[in-house]
Amino acid sequence: MSLASLGRAGGISDAERRDAADPLRHLRARFHLPEGTIYLAGNSLGPAPVAAFADMETALRREWAEGLVRSWNDAGWFALVGFLGDRLGRLVGAGPGQTVVCDSVSVNVYKALHAALALRPDRNVIVAEGGSFPTDLYVAEGVAATRPDIELKLEGVDAEKIEDLIDERTAVVLVNHVDYKTGELRDMAALNRLIHARGAIAVWDLCHSAGVVPVDLDGGGADLAIGCTYKYLNCGPGAPAFIYAASRHHEALSQPLSGWWGHAAPFAFERGYRPAGGIQRLLCGTQPILSMRVVDAGLAAIEDVEMAALRAKSLALTDLFMDLVEPVCRLHGASIVTPRAHAARGSQVSITFEHGFAVVQALIARGVVGDFRAPDMMRFGFAPAYLGYADVQAAAEAFNEVMTSGIWRDERFTKRRAVT
Amino acid sequence: MSLASLGRAGGISDAERRDAADPLRHLRARFHLPEGTIYLAGNSLGPAPVAAFADMETALRREWAEGLVRSWNDAGWFALVGFLGDRLGRLVGAGPGQTVVCDSVSVNVYKALHAALALRPDRNVIVAEGGSFPTDLYVAEGVAATRPDIELKLEGVDAEKIEDLIDERTAVVLVNHVDYKTGELRDMAALNRLIHARGAIAVWDLCHSAGVVPVDLDGGGADLAIGCTYKYLNCGPGAPAFIYAASRHHEALSQPLSGWWGHAAPFAFERGYRPAGGIQRLLCGTQPILSMRVVDAGLAAIEDVEMAALRAKSLALTDLFMDLVEPVCRLHGASIVTPRAHAARGSQVSITFEHGFAVVQALIARGVVGDFRAPDMMRFGFAPAYLGYADVQAAAEAFNEVMTSGIWRDERFTKRRAVT
Repeated sequence: MSLASLGRAGGISDAERRDAADPLRHLRARFHLPEGTIYLAGNSLGPAPVAAFADMETALRREWAEGLVRSWNDAGWFALVGFLGDRLGRLVGAGPGQTVVCDSVSVNVYKALHAALALRPDRNVIVAEGGSFPTDLYVAEGVAATRPDIELKLEGVDAEKIEDLIDERTAVVLVNHVDYKTGELRDMAALNRLIHARGAIAVWDLCHSAGVVPVDLDGGGADLAIGCTYKYLNCGPGAPAFIYAASRHHEALSQPLSGWWGHAAPFAFERGYRPAGGIQRLLCGTQPILSMRVVDAGLAAIEDVEMAALRAKSLALTDLFMDLVEPVCRLHGASIVTPRAHAARGSQVSITFEHGFAVVQALIARGVVGDFRAPDMMRFGFAPAYLGYADVQAAAEAFNEVMTSGIWRDERFTKRRAVT
Repeated sequence: MSLASLGRAGGISDAERRDAADPLRHLRARFHLPEGTIYLAGNSLGPAPVAAFADMETALRREWAEGLVRSWNDAGWFALVGFLGDRLGRLVGAGPGQTVVCDSVSVNVYKALHAALALRPDRNVIVAEGGSFPTDLYVAEGVAATRPDIELKLEGVDAEKIEDLIDERTAVVLVNHVDYKTGELRDMAALNRLIHARGAIAVWDLCHSAGVVPVDLDGGGADLAIGCTYKYLNCGPGAPAFIYAASRHHEALSQPLSGWWGHAAPFAFERGYRPAGGIQRLLCGTQPILSMRVVDAGLAAIEDVEMAALRAKSLALTDLFMDLVEPVCRLHGASIVTPRAHAARGSQVSITFEHGFAVVQALIARGVVGDFRAPDMMRFGFAPAYLGYADVQAAAEAFNEVMTSGIWRDERFTKRRAVT
């Protein structure tokens, strides 16, 4: 049975009817999706927005090759950090002037942790999640290395629940909005209330929620946040990340990556550092403009629809997938670890299975692209902007077929190689 | 008199004869240069290598849009940092495994200074140049902010000559190979000997020498170096920078931006940071791949010729320009501040003149693009890869005409606007 026919067994399927009625169906044409692929790895690297091709042509040939150095002003290159930051901010509930697009997530975590520590000079504990995406923890270690007084306490190591680690010594709580492995979603507003009640600063990692889960940074009382743009925001491989700081903190904001782009007058070439007034002081050096130019197309592909509509479809897609694969999982000893409750999950479905690596390889061979995280986690990301119900049904049927047939035992699929 | 005819007054000029005999003349076709422009701002932003257009098409359409997440391995994205680093290393005298392309110059200065301080834990002074490109100083301030024991001493402030500031308390000397304003070139090997004799670590900023001045990091005994790729390396606006560490330091190397790309096993997703064995431990987070892909074309455009040949032509071009403009400068109270001695300068000619801003504007209006740095510095960069002798002659004649005619007094040229 071919992949294309999977969702169509027995004439027009229910999934196809839902696609036909989907108010977001038009978004799919804004993305380039390879023939014969159902792409469920958009939680790792989002697909290319079609507009990126023409935009890059303009950036390369008109702005760089023809405009040369004057494009820093004339093409608005220098202003991109804030121009794109404000637009991205709207997708995560941030009013203007609080978000900049720049650097990598790891570099921004470093800035955010230092900024938070500087806001709480009388405290010396960083609280984070033991199950965090590791770079957050590695960077927290790096921050602690520059400040020998700092202590790092981890959920899952020093206490079962993060709430139990937050006390009067806690300067900052670094927490993922959606867990990269399980897909679990935190209640941002509730945790912020607790963090603030105990006098600490919250730094939110939005890598797995920005662009697909409603985020209300301002309304939810967030202090600082960072996130990436290459997952559900579809801005290109390694595209510049973002950093947010609530305006109430701007006056006291400081961070040690005090490069010239964060200076109050970067082109005055003054000898001493004088931080810019607002969110700009979280900038450091010159940004990679060609990668930055694609952020425009990534944001444009989803910013004209309501996040609530994206969320509703995301939940419907993940519900459908879980409904379809759960019986087969149960039969073969695989477990869906992503919470079923809507309020408790993002936009991915994670399934643990001892032979998950091989199952993912067998699915990829069938055109269903998910990914695998050691030791046993299969991850399937469902991006409502370019996936439909028939895609989900076809993916689920492929999954069930691979599990049921045991084809994953073939050595084509069990043989490991370096994975990213 | 039109720009095109300037260099051709009186039949075939000497400059044209030199162009015809130039062994590097073929390199010019590797760059896109706008019609009617003589581009002397390549020391700020280099022009586009023609190969970048097709490379970007491949990166966008084949690698990202079609290859999607598997391109991290299949298209070698993850390895670019080191693959490009080694190639760039060859251009600055660095053997393989000592250079990575990543992040911005400012971020790399931060890493390099921290790494140097960690190599000299019993010392606490950073020595730098008061006339340094400011971001180096701003970042040094940021480093000092995380380490209250650190003191910053500046050439031109705390002593006239940098040599007089280096003593047994000096941990690290941060120094520019070529001065961004005056174009002055330091003797790297000699200064390294002095720095090492006094027990300190040298960090070289190669922003204004990489790609145009012979640099011998290994042979000259350098410890650490950083530099940018968007000036004489022509890798695109804000393209990722580079960082070098001599292999003898690798084992003891540490820096606080300890993100996952610097981990010994980034895809093992371990909880604790364990630094990679070699130069990789100077990496931090995910790199902007589309900008990174253009570094290939920038390097390819010059890496098959001898740096000595580029240097010889660079000196000939700058000699010619200085010879042609010096009499007019003297007449109008302008001064060439770039040293005449070959051993003492890079590849730019800087001229101070009270009304330099207006002169640069008047030259731009004639298609001769240089730049201006407050309060009175005109900078003209001469890239031997794409400029010829006739270009230099035409630029010098335009300069002389603007100075002599006083056309720069026109308010079209005197009116200031934001400059980058």
